[in-house]
Amino acid sequence: MTRKTFDAAAIAAHEAGLSAALDAGRRVLAGGGTALDAVTAAVCALEDDPHFNAGRGAVFTYHGTNELDAAIMAGDTRAAGAVAGVMHTRNPVKLARTVMEAGPHVFLSGAGAEEFARDHGVEHVDPDWFATPERWRQLEELKSRKLGWFDSGMKYGTVGAVARDAAGHVAAATSTGGLTGKRWGRIGDSPLIGAGTYADDRAGAVSCTGSGEQFIRAGAAHEICARMRLTGESADQAAAAVLAEIGAIGGVGGVIVVTPAGETALAFTTPGMFRARADSTGLEEVAIFA
Amino acid sequence: MTRKTFDAAAIAAHEAGLSAALDAGRRVLAGGGTALDAVTAAVCALEDDPHFNAGRGAVFTYHGTNELDAAIMAGDTRAAGAVAGVMHTRNPVKLARTVMEAGPHVFLSGAGAEEFARDHGVEHVDPDWFATPERWRQLEELKSRKLGWFDSGMKYGTVGAVARDAAGHVAAATSTGGLTGKRWGRIGDSPLIGAGTYADDRAGAVSCTGSGEQFIRAGAAHEICARMRLTGESADQAAAAVLAEIGAIGGVGGVIVVTPAGETALAFTTPGMFRARADSTGLEEVAIFA
Repeated sequence: MTRKTFDAAAIAAHEAGLSAALDAGRRVLAGGGTALDAVTAAVCALEDDPHFNAGRGAVFTYHGTNELDAAIMAGDTRAAGAVAGVMHTRNPVKLARTVMEAGPHVFLSGAGAEEFARDHGVEHVDPDWFATPERWRQLEELKSRKLGWFDSGMKYGTVGAVARDAAGHVAAATSTGGLTGKRWGRIGDSPLIGAGTYADDRAGAVSCTGSGEQFIRAGAAHEICARMRLTGESADQAAAAVLAEIGAIGGVGGVIVVTPAGETALAFTTPGMFRARADSTGLEEVAIFA
Repeated sequence: MTRKTFDAAAIAAHEAGLSAALDAGRRVLAGGGTALDAVTAAVCALEDDPHFNAGRGAVFTYHGTNELDAAIMAGDTRAAGAVAGVMHTRNPVKLARTVMEAGPHVFLSGAGAEEFARDHGVEHVDPDWFATPERWRQLEELKSRKLGWFDSGMKYGTVGAVARDAAGHVAAATSTGGLTGKRWGRIGDSPLIGAGTYADDRAGAVSCTGSGEQFIRAGAAHEICARMRLTGESADQAAAAVLAEIGAIGGVGGVIVVTPAGETALAFTTPGMFRARADSTGLEEVAIFA
Protein backbone atom coordinates (compact mmCIF):
# COMPACT_ATOMS: atom_id res chain seq x y z
CA MET A 1 0.00 0.00 0.00
CA THR A 2 1.21 3.51 -0.84
CA ARG A 3 -0.16 7.04 -0.65
CA LYS A 4 -1.05 6.73 -4.33
CA THR A 5 -3.35 3.78 -3.63
CA PHE A 6 -5.72 5.80 -1.46
CA ASP A 7 -7.49 9.08 -2.14
CA ALA A 8 -8.56 11.48 0.61
CA ALA A 9 -12.04 9.98 0.90
CA ALA A 10 -10.66 6.46 1.25
CA ILE A 11 -8.18 7.59 3.87
CA ALA A 12 -10.94 9.34 5.84
CA ALA A 13 -13.14 6.24 5.67
CA HIS A 14 -10.35 3.97 6.89
CA GLU A 15 -9.44 6.38 9.70
CA ALA A 16 -13.06 6.49 10.80
CA GLY A 17 -13.15 2.69 10.84
CA LEU A 18 -9.98 2.54 12.90
CA SER A 19 -11.36 5.09 15.38
CA ALA A 20 -14.58 3.14 15.76
CA ALA A 21 -12.71 -0.10 16.40
CA LEU A 22 -10.41 1.63 18.86
CA ASP A 23 -13.45 3.03 20.67
CA ALA A 24 -15.10 -0.38 20.78
CA GLY A 25 -12.07 -1.94 22.42
CA ARG A 26 -11.43 0.98 24.73
CA ARG A 27 -15.03 1.00 25.97
CA VAL A 28 -14.64 -2.63 27.04
CA LEU A 29 -11.41 -1.98 28.92
CA ALA A 30 -12.62 1.28 30.51
CA GLY A 31 -15.60 -0.66 31.85
CA GLY A 32 -13.32 -3.17 33.52
CA GLY A 33 -13.69 -5.77 30.77
CA THR A 34 -11.10 -8.30 29.74
CA ALA A 35 -8.47 -8.04 27.04
CA LEU A 36 -10.24 -10.95 25.33
CA ASP A 37 -13.51 -9.00 25.18
CA ALA A 38 -11.68 -5.89 23.98
CA VAL A 39 -9.99 -7.59 21.02
CA THR A 40 -13.24 -9.34 20.14
CA ALA A 41 -15.09 -6.00 20.08
CA ALA A 42 -12.41 -4.22 18.08
CA VAL A 43 -12.11 -6.96 15.47
CA CYS A 44 -15.91 -7.30 15.15
CA ALA A 45 -16.09 -3.56 14.37
CA LEU A 46 -13.48 -3.98 11.62
CA GLU A 47 -15.18 -7.12 10.26
CA ASP A 48 -18.45 -5.21 9.93
CA ASP A 49 -16.75 -2.23 8.22
CA PRO A 50 -16.69 -2.84 4.45
CA HIS A 51 -13.41 -0.93 4.03
CA PHE A 52 -11.31 -3.66 5.61
CA ASN A 53 -10.44 -7.09 4.24
CA ALA A 54 -12.24 -9.12 6.91
CA GLY A 55 -15.90 -10.04 7.32
CA ARG A 56 -17.96 -7.63 5.21
CA GLY A 57 -15.67 -6.22 2.53
CA ALA A 58 -13.44 -9.30 2.37
CA VAL A 59 -11.59 -9.93 -0.87
CA PHE A 60 -12.84 -12.48 -3.38
CA THR A 61 -11.23 -15.82 -4.11
CA TYR A 62 -10.34 -16.93 -7.62
CA HIS A 63 -13.73 -18.60 -7.83
CA GLY A 64 -15.61 -15.45 -6.78
CA THR A 65 -16.42 -16.46 -3.20
CA ASN A 66 -15.51 -14.85 0.13
CA GLU A 67 -13.69 -17.34 2.38
CA LEU A 68 -12.81 -16.02 5.80
CA ASP A 69 -10.16 -16.89 8.38
CA ALA A 70 -9.85 -15.73 12.00
CA ALA A 71 -8.09 -16.56 15.26
CA ILE A 72 -8.15 -15.45 18.87
CA MET A 73 -5.92 -16.26 21.85
CA ALA A 74 -5.92 -15.46 25.56
CA GLY A 75 -2.56 -14.78 27.19
CA ASP A 76 -3.52 -15.93 30.69
CA THR A 77 -4.48 -19.51 29.78
CA ARG A 78 -3.00 -19.68 26.30
CA ALA A 79 -6.41 -20.94 25.22
CA ALA A 80 -6.96 -20.36 21.52
CA GLY A 81 -9.58 -20.75 18.81
CA ALA A 82 -9.39 -20.40 15.05
CA VAL A 83 -11.37 -20.98 11.88
CA ALA A 84 -10.46 -21.11 8.19
CA GLY A 85 -12.52 -20.94 5.03
CA VAL A 86 -15.89 -19.95 6.52
CA MET A 87 -18.43 -18.47 4.10
CA HIS A 88 -21.57 -17.82 6.16
CA THR A 89 -20.43 -16.54 9.56
CA ARG A 90 -20.92 -12.79 9.94
CA ASN A 91 -18.11 -12.35 12.47
CA PRO A 92 -15.44 -15.01 12.06
CA VAL A 93 -13.66 -13.76 15.19
CA LYS A 94 -16.77 -14.58 17.24
CA LEU A 95 -16.76 -18.08 15.79
CA ALA A 96 -13.05 -18.42 16.64
CA ARG A 97 -13.87 -17.39 20.19
CA THR A 98 -16.73 -19.89 20.38
CA VAL A 99 -14.35 -22.60 19.16
CA MET A 100 -11.98 -21.59 21.96
CA GLU A 101 -14.60 -21.51 24.68
CA ALA A 102 -17.18 -24.14 23.71
CA GLY A 103 -15.41 -26.75 21.60
CA PRO A 104 -12.90 -29.53 22.20
CA HIS A 105 -10.64 -28.34 19.39
CA VAL A 106 -8.56 -25.25 18.58
CA PHE A 107 -8.85 -25.05 14.79
CA LEU A 108 -11.89 -25.80 12.60
CA SER A 109 -12.20 -25.41 8.84
CA GLY A 110 -14.64 -25.09 5.97
CA ALA A 111 -18.15 -26.49 6.03
CA GLY A 112 -17.38 -28.32 9.27
CA ALA A 113 -16.57 -25.05 11.02
CA GLU A 114 -19.94 -23.70 9.92
CA GLU A 115 -21.73 -26.80 11.16
CA PHE A 116 -20.10 -26.00 14.52
CA ALA A 117 -21.26 -22.37 14.16
CA ARG A 118 -24.86 -23.48 13.62
CA ASP A 119 -24.68 -25.91 16.55
CA HIS A 120 -23.53 -23.06 18.78
CA GLY A 121 -25.81 -20.28 17.54
CA VAL A 122 -23.13 -18.09 16.00
CA GLU A 123 -24.76 -15.55 13.65
CA HIS A 124 -25.19 -16.90 10.13
CA VAL A 125 -25.53 -14.62 7.09
CA ASP A 126 -26.07 -15.06 3.38
CA PRO A 127 -22.74 -14.94 1.50
CA ASP A 128 -23.94 -11.71 -0.15
CA TRP A 129 -23.37 -10.00 3.20
CA PHE A 130 -19.61 -10.05 2.58
CA ALA A 131 -19.59 -8.96 -1.07
CA THR A 132 -18.73 -5.38 -2.06
CA PRO A 133 -18.39 -3.90 -5.58
CA GLU A 134 -14.88 -2.58 -4.93
CA ARG A 135 -13.56 -6.05 -4.00
CA TRP A 136 -15.21 -7.53 -7.08
CA ARG A 137 -13.52 -4.87 -9.20
CA GLN A 138 -10.18 -5.82 -7.63
CA LEU A 139 -10.71 -9.48 -8.52
CA GLU A 140 -11.58 -8.57 -12.11
CA GLU A 141 -8.53 -6.31 -12.34
CA LEU A 142 -6.28 -9.06 -11.02
CA LYS A 143 -7.68 -11.55 -13.52
CA SER A 144 -7.69 -9.17 -16.52
CA ARG A 145 -4.14 -7.99 -15.88
CA LYS A 146 -3.07 -11.56 -15.15
CA LEU A 147 -1.45 -10.34 -11.96
CA GLY A 148 -0.22 -12.89 -9.48
CA TRP A 149 -1.16 -12.74 -5.80
CA PHE A 150 2.30 -11.54 -4.98
CA ASP A 151 2.44 -8.54 -7.30
CA SER A 152 -1.11 -7.32 -7.05
CA GLY A 153 -0.69 -4.80 -4.24
CA MET A 154 -4.11 -5.99 -3.12
CA LYS A 155 -3.02 -8.52 -0.62
CA TYR A 156 -3.13 -6.55 2.61
CA GLY A 157 -6.00 -5.46 4.75
CA THR A 158 -6.08 -8.23 7.33
CA VAL A 159 -7.37 -6.78 10.60
CA GLY A 160 -6.11 -7.50 14.08
CA ALA A 161 -6.19 -6.25 17.64
CA VAL A 162 -4.12 -6.73 20.77
CA ALA A 163 -5.10 -5.57 24.24
CA ARG A 164 -3.90 -5.52 27.83
CA ASP A 165 -6.51 -5.28 30.56
CA ALA A 166 -6.53 -3.88 34.09
CA ALA A 167 -5.63 -7.31 35.48
CA GLY A 168 -2.50 -7.35 33.32
CA HIS A 169 -3.70 -10.05 30.95
CA VAL A 170 -3.16 -9.78 27.21
CA ALA A 171 -5.10 -11.12 24.22
CA ALA A 172 -4.80 -11.08 20.44
CA ALA A 173 -7.25 -11.55 17.57
CA THR A 174 -6.85 -11.50 13.79
CA SER A 175 -9.39 -11.75 10.95
CA THR A 176 -9.03 -11.72 7.18
CA GLY A 177 -10.46 -12.56 3.78
CA GLY A 178 -6.94 -13.54 2.75
CA LEU A 179 -5.57 -12.71 -0.70
CA THR A 180 -7.60 -11.47 -3.66
CA GLY A 181 -7.81 -14.37 -6.12
CA LYS A 182 -6.56 -17.00 -3.65
CA ARG A 183 -7.11 -20.60 -4.77
CA TRP A 184 -6.90 -24.20 -3.71
CA GLY A 185 -8.29 -23.66 -0.22
CA ARG A 186 -5.27 -21.51 0.66
CA ILE A 187 -4.94 -20.78 4.38
CA GLY A 188 -2.69 -17.87 5.31
CA ASP A 189 -1.00 -16.94 8.57
CA SER A 190 -3.91 -15.10 10.19
CA PRO A 191 -5.76 -18.14 11.65
CA LEU A 192 -2.59 -20.07 12.48
CA ILE A 193 -1.79 -19.86 16.17
CA GLY A 194 1.90 -18.92 16.34
CA ALA A 195 2.08 -17.53 12.79
CA GLY A 196 -0.35 -14.59 12.53
CA THR A 197 -1.75 -14.63 16.06
CA TYR A 198 -0.31 -15.42 19.51
CA ALA A 199 -0.81 -14.36 23.12
CA ASP A 200 1.12 -15.33 26.23
CA ASP A 201 1.07 -13.40 29.52
CA ARG A 202 4.74 -14.32 29.98
CA ALA A 203 5.61 -12.21 26.90
CA GLY A 204 2.84 -10.36 25.05
CA ALA A 205 0.05 -10.49 22.49
CA VAL A 206 0.77 -10.27 18.77
CA SER A 207 -1.29 -9.90 15.59
CA CYS A 208 0.30 -9.85 12.13
CA THR A 209 -0.51 -8.71 8.59
CA GLY A 210 1.47 -9.04 5.40
CA SER A 211 2.79 -11.73 3.11
CA GLY A 212 1.32 -14.63 5.02
CA GLU A 213 3.45 -17.40 3.60
CA GLN A 214 6.65 -15.88 5.01
CA PHE A 215 4.94 -15.17 8.35
CA ILE A 216 4.03 -18.87 8.55
CA ARG A 217 7.58 -19.99 7.72
CA ALA A 218 9.01 -17.64 10.39
CA GLY A 219 6.44 -18.60 13.04
CA ALA A 220 6.19 -14.82 13.35
CA ALA A 221 3.79 -14.20 16.25
CA HIS A 222 5.24 -17.00 18.37
CA GLU A 223 8.79 -15.92 17.53
CA ILE A 224 8.11 -12.38 18.79
CA CYS A 225 6.80 -13.81 22.07
CA ALA A 226 9.67 -16.31 22.30
CA ARG A 227 12.27 -13.56 21.83
CA MET A 228 10.69 -11.41 24.56
CA ARG A 229 10.33 -14.37 26.93
CA LEU A 230 13.68 -16.11 26.31
CA THR A 231 16.04 -13.21 25.56
CA GLY A 232 14.46 -10.23 27.30
CA GLU A 233 14.07 -8.21 24.12
CA SER A 234 11.55 -5.35 24.18
CA ALA A 235 8.42 -5.51 22.05
CA ASP A 236 10.01 -3.09 19.56
CA GLN A 237 13.23 -5.10 19.39
CA ALA A 238 11.46 -8.42 18.94
CA ALA A 239 9.10 -7.00 16.31
CA ALA A 240 12.01 -5.48 14.36
CA ALA A 241 14.01 -8.71 14.53
CA VAL A 242 11.14 -10.80 13.21
CA LEU A 243 10.27 -8.36 10.42
CA ALA A 244 13.94 -8.41 9.41
CA GLU A 245 13.88 -12.20 9.36
CA ILE A 246 10.71 -12.16 7.25
CA GLY A 247 12.42 -9.71 4.91
CA ALA A 248 15.35 -12.09 4.56
CA ILE A 249 13.02 -14.81 3.27
CA GLY A 250 11.25 -12.41 0.89
CA GLY A 251 8.28 -11.13 2.90
CA VAL A 252 6.95 -7.78 4.06
CA GLY A 253 4.22 -6.78 6.47
CA GLY A 254 3.48 -5.46 9.91
CA VAL A 255 2.85 -6.52 13.49
CA ILE A 256 1.14 -5.07 16.53
CA VAL A 257 2.28 -6.08 20.01
CA VAL A 258 1.27 -5.33 23.59
CA THR A 259 2.88 -6.69 26.74
CA PRO A 260 1.40 -7.32 30.20
CA ALA A 261 3.41 -4.25 31.35
CA GLY A 262 1.59 -2.11 28.78
CA GLU A 263 4.49 -1.70 26.37
CA THR A 264 3.33 -1.54 22.73
CA ALA A 265 4.91 -1.89 19.30
CA LEU A 266 3.38 -1.06 15.90
CA ALA A 267 6.00 -2.06 13.35
CA PHE A 268 5.89 -2.58 9.58
CA THR A 269 8.12 -2.90 6.56
CA THR A 270 5.44 -1.75 4.10
CA PRO A 271 5.06 1.96 3.18
CA GLY A 272 2.16 2.13 5.61
CA MET A 273 -0.10 0.17 7.94
CA PHE A 274 -3.56 1.23 9.08
CA ARG A 275 -3.15 1.38 12.84
CA ALA A 276 -4.54 2.89 16.03
CA ARG A 277 -3.56 2.81 19.67
CA ALA A 278 -5.01 4.08 22.95
CA ASP A 279 -4.33 3.68 26.64
CA SER A 280 -5.78 4.74 30.01
CA THR A 281 -3.49 7.81 30.22
CA GLY A 282 -5.26 9.45 27.29
CA LEU A 283 -2.92 8.40 24.50
CA GLU A 284 -4.86 8.14 21.25
CA GLU A 285 -3.25 7.64 17.90
CA VAL A 286 -4.66 6.81 14.45
CA ALA A 287 -2.16 6.56 11.59
CA ILE A 288 -1.68 5.05 8.16
CA PHE A 289 1.70 5.82 6.62
CA ALA A 290 5.17 5.66 8.15
CA MET B 1 -0.91 -46.10 24.38
CA THR B 2 0.16 -48.78 26.83
CA ARG B 3 1.57 -52.30 26.68
CA LYS B 4 -1.97 -53.58 27.18
CA THR B 5 -3.15 -51.88 23.98
CA PHE B 6 -0.89 -53.96 21.74
CA ASP B 7 -0.45 -57.73 21.48
CA ALA B 8 2.77 -59.35 20.26
CA ALA B 9 1.59 -59.50 16.65
CA ALA B 10 0.66 -55.82 16.63
CA ILE B 11 4.00 -54.89 18.16
CA ALA B 12 5.86 -56.95 15.53
CA ALA B 13 3.88 -55.35 12.71
CA HIS B 14 4.57 -51.84 13.98
CA GLU B 15 8.27 -52.60 14.48
CA ALA B 16 8.48 -53.93 10.93
CA GLY B 17 6.83 -50.75 9.65
CA LEU B 18 9.27 -48.59 11.60
CA SER B 19 12.24 -50.58 10.26
CA ALA B 20 11.00 -50.22 6.69
CA ALA B 21 10.56 -46.47 7.09
CA LEU B 22 13.99 -46.16 8.70
CA ASP B 23 15.51 -48.10 5.81
CA ALA B 24 13.74 -45.92 3.25
CA GLY B 25 15.16 -42.76 4.81
CA ARG B 26 18.59 -44.23 5.40
CA ARG B 27 18.89 -45.42 1.79
CA VAL B 28 18.31 -41.85 0.59
CA LEU B 29 20.94 -40.41 2.92
CA ALA B 30 23.49 -43.18 2.28
CA GLY B 31 23.17 -42.44 -1.44
CA GLY B 32 24.03 -38.79 -0.84
CA GLY B 33 20.40 -37.63 -0.95
CA THR B 34 18.96 -34.68 0.90
CA ALA B 35 17.30 -34.61 4.30
CA LEU B 36 14.15 -33.47 2.49
CA ASP B 37 14.15 -36.58 0.30
CA ALA B 38 14.87 -38.77 3.32
CA VAL B 39 11.91 -37.53 5.39
CA THR B 40 9.66 -37.75 2.32
CA ALA B 41 10.66 -41.39 1.77
CA ALA B 42 10.29 -42.34 5.44
CA VAL B 43 6.88 -40.72 5.81
CA CYS B 44 5.61 -42.20 2.52
CA ALA B 45 6.53 -45.66 3.82
CA LEU B 46 4.53 -45.04 7.01
CA GLU B 47 1.60 -43.55 5.06
CA ASP B 48 1.42 -46.70 2.92
CA ASP B 49 1.61 -49.00 5.97
CA PRO B 50 -1.93 -49.64 7.27
CA HIS B 51 -0.73 -49.95 10.88
CA PHE B 52 -0.10 -46.23 11.27
CA ASN B 53 -2.60 -43.38 11.46
CA ALA B 54 -1.55 -41.63 8.25
CA GLY B 55 -2.41 -42.32 4.62
CA ARG B 56 -3.64 -45.92 4.38
CA GLY B 57 -4.86 -46.93 7.83
CA ALA B 58 -5.85 -43.41 8.87
CA VAL B 59 -8.54 -43.08 11.52
CA PHE B 60 -12.12 -42.27 10.57
CA THR B 61 -13.85 -38.97 11.19
CA TYR B 62 -17.21 -38.75 12.96
CA HIS B 63 -18.88 -38.90 9.55
CA GLY B 64 -16.98 -42.04 8.50
CA THR B 65 -14.50 -40.43 6.13
CA ASN B 66 -10.69 -40.34 6.19
CA GLU B 67 -9.41 -36.75 6.14
CA LEU B 68 -5.66 -36.42 6.03
CA ASP B 69 -3.22 -33.71 7.09
CA ALA B 70 0.51 -33.41 6.37
CA ALA B 71 3.38 -30.93 6.40
CA ILE B 72 7.01 -30.76 5.34
CA MET B 73 9.73 -28.17 5.92
CA ALA B 74 13.33 -27.70 4.77
CA GLY B 75 15.79 -26.28 7.29
CA ASP B 76 18.14 -24.65 4.77
CA THR B 77 15.56 -22.32 3.17
CA ARG B 78 12.77 -22.65 5.73
CA ALA B 79 10.52 -23.39 2.75
CA ALA B 80 7.42 -25.29 3.85
CA GLY B 81 4.31 -26.94 2.46
CA ALA B 82 1.24 -28.32 4.16
CA VAL B 83 -2.22 -29.70 3.43
CA ALA B 84 -5.29 -30.33 5.58
CA GLY B 85 -8.42 -32.38 5.03
CA VAL B 86 -7.43 -34.21 1.85
CA MET B 87 -9.45 -37.34 1.00
CA HIS B 88 -8.07 -38.61 -2.30
CA THR B 89 -4.29 -38.13 -2.19
CA ARG B 90 -2.43 -41.40 -1.59
CA ASN B 91 0.58 -39.73 0.05
CA PRO B 92 -0.35 -36.44 1.69
CA VAL B 93 3.33 -35.76 2.45
CA LYS B 94 4.07 -35.77 -1.29
CA LEU B 95 1.28 -33.27 -1.82
CA ALA B 96 2.68 -31.09 0.98
CA ARG B 97 6.05 -31.22 -0.75
CA THR B 98 4.50 -30.30 -4.10
CA VAL B 99 2.77 -27.35 -2.41
CA MET B 100 6.17 -26.30 -1.08
CA GLU B 101 8.01 -26.66 -4.37
CA ALA B 102 5.44 -25.87 -7.07
CA GLY B 103 2.86 -23.55 -5.55
CA PRO B 104 2.72 -19.93 -4.47
CA HIS B 105 1.28 -20.83 -1.05
CA VAL B 106 2.37 -22.77 2.03
CA PHE B 107 -0.90 -24.25 3.27
CA LEU B 108 -3.81 -25.62 1.21
CA SER B 109 -6.99 -27.27 2.47
CA GLY B 110 -9.88 -29.51 1.52
CA ALA B 111 -11.22 -29.84 -2.00
CA GLY B 112 -9.02 -26.94 -3.12
CA ALA B 113 -5.89 -28.80 -2.05
CA GLU B 114 -7.01 -31.76 -4.15
CA GLU B 115 -7.67 -29.55 -7.16
CA PHE B 116 -4.03 -28.45 -6.73
CA ALA B 117 -3.00 -32.13 -6.49
CA ARG B 118 -4.76 -32.94 -9.75
CA ASP B 119 -3.23 -29.89 -11.47
CA HIS B 120 0.22 -31.09 -10.42
CA GLY B 121 -0.15 -34.81 -11.08
CA VAL B 122 0.06 -35.98 -7.46
CA GLU B 123 -1.24 -39.57 -7.20
CA HIS B 124 -4.99 -39.72 -6.67
CA VAL B 125 -6.73 -42.73 -5.10
CA ASP B 126 -10.26 -43.78 -4.32
CA PRO B 127 -11.12 -43.02 -0.67
CA ASP B 128 -11.40 -46.79 -0.09
CA TRP B 129 -7.61 -46.93 -0.31
CA PHE B 130 -7.35 -45.43 3.17
CA ALA B 131 -10.05 -47.47 4.91
CA THR B 132 -9.16 -50.41 7.15
CA PRO B 133 -11.51 -52.60 9.23
CA GLU B 134 -9.58 -51.98 12.46
CA ARG B 135 -9.99 -48.19 12.18
CA TRP B 136 -13.68 -48.62 11.44
CA ARG B 137 -14.00 -50.80 14.55
CA GLN B 138 -12.30 -48.04 16.58
CA LEU B 139 -14.80 -45.45 15.31
CA GLU B 140 -17.72 -47.70 16.18
CA GLU B 141 -16.27 -48.35 19.62
CA LEU B 142 -15.80 -44.64 20.22
CA LYS B 143 -19.38 -43.93 19.20
CA SER B 144 -20.96 -46.87 21.04
CA ARG B 145 -19.09 -46.11 24.27
CA LYS B 146 -19.78 -42.40 23.80
CA LEU B 147 -16.11 -41.72 24.40
CA GLY B 148 -14.80 -38.26 23.73
CA TRP B 149 -11.74 -37.68 21.59
CA PHE B 150 -9.71 -36.90 24.64
CA ASP B 151 -10.41 -40.06 26.59
CA SER B 152 -10.47 -42.58 23.79
CA GLY B 153 -6.83 -43.64 23.87
CA MET B 154 -7.13 -43.79 20.09
CA LYS B 155 -5.83 -40.40 19.31
CA TYR B 156 -2.19 -41.11 18.61
CA GLY B 157 -0.48 -42.67 15.65
CA THR B 158 0.56 -39.55 13.75
CA VAL B 159 3.74 -40.32 11.84
CA GLY B 160 6.74 -38.08 11.40
CA ALA B 161 10.38 -38.06 10.38
CA VAL B 162 13.34 -35.77 10.86
CA ALA B 163 16.68 -36.10 9.08
CA ARG B 164 20.09 -34.48 8.77
CA ASP B 165 22.00 -34.99 5.53
CA ALA B 166 25.70 -35.06 4.65
CA ALA B 167 25.61 -31.34 3.81
CA GLY B 168 24.39 -30.60 7.36
CA HIS B 169 20.87 -29.60 6.36
CA VAL B 170 17.85 -30.77 8.32
CA ALA B 171 14.23 -31.42 7.33
CA ALA B 172 11.02 -32.50 9.03
CA ALA B 173 7.77 -34.08 7.83
CA THR B 174 4.58 -35.11 9.63
CA SER B 175 1.45 -36.90 8.39
CA THR B 176 -1.76 -37.95 10.14
CA GLY B 177 -5.39 -38.92 9.92
CA GLY B 178 -5.94 -36.87 13.06
CA LEU B 179 -8.28 -38.04 15.81
CA THR B 180 -10.77 -40.90 15.57
CA GLY B 181 -14.21 -39.31 15.39
CA LYS B 182 -12.93 -35.79 14.71
CA ARG B 183 -15.62 -33.36 13.53
CA TRP B 184 -16.22 -29.89 12.18
CA GLY B 185 -13.25 -29.86 9.84
CA ARG B 186 -10.89 -30.07 12.81
CA ILE B 187 -7.25 -29.40 11.92
CA GLY B 188 -4.67 -30.57 14.46
CA ASP B 189 -1.06 -29.60 14.99
CA SER B 190 0.51 -31.92 12.40
CA PRO B 191 0.07 -29.72 9.30
CA LEU B 192 0.64 -26.45 11.15
CA ILE B 193 4.13 -25.11 10.54
CA GLY B 194 5.49 -24.24 13.98
CA ALA B 195 3.03 -26.44 15.90
CA GLY B 196 3.56 -30.07 14.79
CA THR B 197 6.32 -29.55 12.23
CA TYR B 198 9.29 -27.16 11.96
CA ALA B 199 12.80 -27.15 10.48
CA ASP B 200 15.52 -24.51 10.69
CA ASP B 201 19.20 -25.15 10.01
CA ARG B 202 20.02 -22.62 12.75
CA ALA B 203 18.43 -24.98 15.32
CA GLY B 204 17.02 -28.33 14.19
CA ALA B 205 14.13 -30.23 12.68
CA VAL B 206 11.14 -31.28 14.79
CA SER B 207 8.07 -33.47 14.28
CA CYS B 208 5.43 -33.90 17.00
CA THR B 209 2.67 -36.32 17.97
CA GLY B 210 0.16 -36.19 20.81
CA SER B 211 -2.70 -34.04 21.98
CA GLY B 212 -2.62 -31.64 19.07
CA GLU B 213 -4.60 -28.82 20.60
CA GLN B 214 -2.01 -28.27 23.33
CA PHE B 215 0.83 -28.58 20.81
CA ILE B 216 -0.81 -25.78 18.79
CA ARG B 217 -1.23 -23.56 21.85
CA ALA B 218 2.43 -24.06 22.82
CA GLY B 219 3.75 -23.56 19.28
CA ALA B 220 5.61 -26.76 20.12
CA ALA B 221 7.89 -27.43 17.14
CA HIS B 222 8.84 -23.78 16.73
CA GLU B 223 9.35 -23.40 20.48
CA ILE B 224 11.85 -26.29 20.52
CA CYS B 225 13.79 -24.63 17.70
CA ALA B 226 13.55 -21.19 19.33
CA ARG B 227 14.92 -22.53 22.64
CA MET B 228 17.89 -24.17 20.90
CA ARG B 229 18.57 -21.09 18.76
CA LEU B 230 18.01 -18.36 21.36
CA THR B 231 19.15 -20.00 24.62
CA GLY B 232 21.62 -22.66 23.48
CA GLU B 233 19.64 -25.53 25.00
CA SER B 234 20.38 -29.02 23.68
CA ALA B 235 17.75 -30.92 21.70
CA ASP B 236 17.00 -33.05 24.79
CA GLN B 237 16.69 -29.99 27.04
CA ALA B 238 14.45 -28.11 24.61
CA ALA B 239 12.26 -31.16 24.00
CA ALA B 240 11.86 -31.78 27.73
CA ALA B 241 11.05 -28.12 28.41
CA VAL B 242 8.35 -28.02 25.75
CA LEU B 243 6.79 -31.33 26.80
CA ALA B 244 6.68 -30.00 30.37
CA GLU B 245 4.97 -26.84 29.15
CA ILE B 246 2.46 -28.93 27.19
CA GLY B 247 1.86 -30.98 30.32
CA ALA B 248 1.18 -27.79 32.27
CA ILE B 249 -1.66 -26.93 29.87
CA GLY B 250 -3.07 -30.46 29.96
CA GLY B 251 -1.42 -32.21 27.02
CA VAL B 252 0.77 -35.26 26.47
CA GLY B 253 2.69 -36.53 23.49
CA GLY B 254 6.11 -36.90 21.97
CA VAL B 255 8.63 -35.18 19.75
CA ILE B 256 11.54 -36.21 17.55
CA VAL B 257 14.38 -33.76 16.94
CA VAL B 258 17.61 -33.72 14.94
CA THR B 259 20.12 -30.87 14.74
CA PRO B 260 22.53 -29.91 11.94
CA ALA B 261 25.33 -31.26 14.21
CA GLY B 262 23.62 -34.66 14.26
CA GLU B 263 22.33 -34.49 17.83
CA THR B 264 18.97 -36.28 18.24
CA ALA B 265 16.17 -36.36 20.80
CA LEU B 266 13.25 -38.81 21.01
CA ALA B 267 11.16 -37.60 23.94
CA PHE B 268 7.63 -38.40 25.10
CA THR B 269 5.32 -38.09 28.07
CA THR B 270 3.10 -41.01 27.02
CA PRO B 271 3.83 -44.59 28.18
CA GLY B 272 5.41 -45.22 24.79
CA MET B 273 6.07 -43.85 21.34
CA PHE B 274 6.78 -45.89 18.22
CA ARG B 275 10.21 -44.67 17.21
CA ALA B 276 13.33 -45.54 15.27
CA ARG B 277 16.70 -43.92 14.74
CA ALA B 278 19.79 -44.60 12.64
CA ASP B 279 23.01 -42.82 11.71
CA SER B 280 26.06 -43.29 9.51
CA THR B 281 28.12 -44.82 12.37
CA GLY B 282 25.87 -47.87 12.44
CA LEU B 283 23.50 -46.84 15.22
CA GLU B 284 20.13 -48.49 14.68
CA GLU B 285 17.33 -48.40 17.20
CA VAL B 286 13.66 -49.40 16.99
CA ALA B 287 11.61 -49.00 20.17
CA ILE B 288 8.06 -48.59 21.41
CA PHE B 289 7.79 -48.24 25.18
CA ALA B 290 9.83 -46.12 27.55
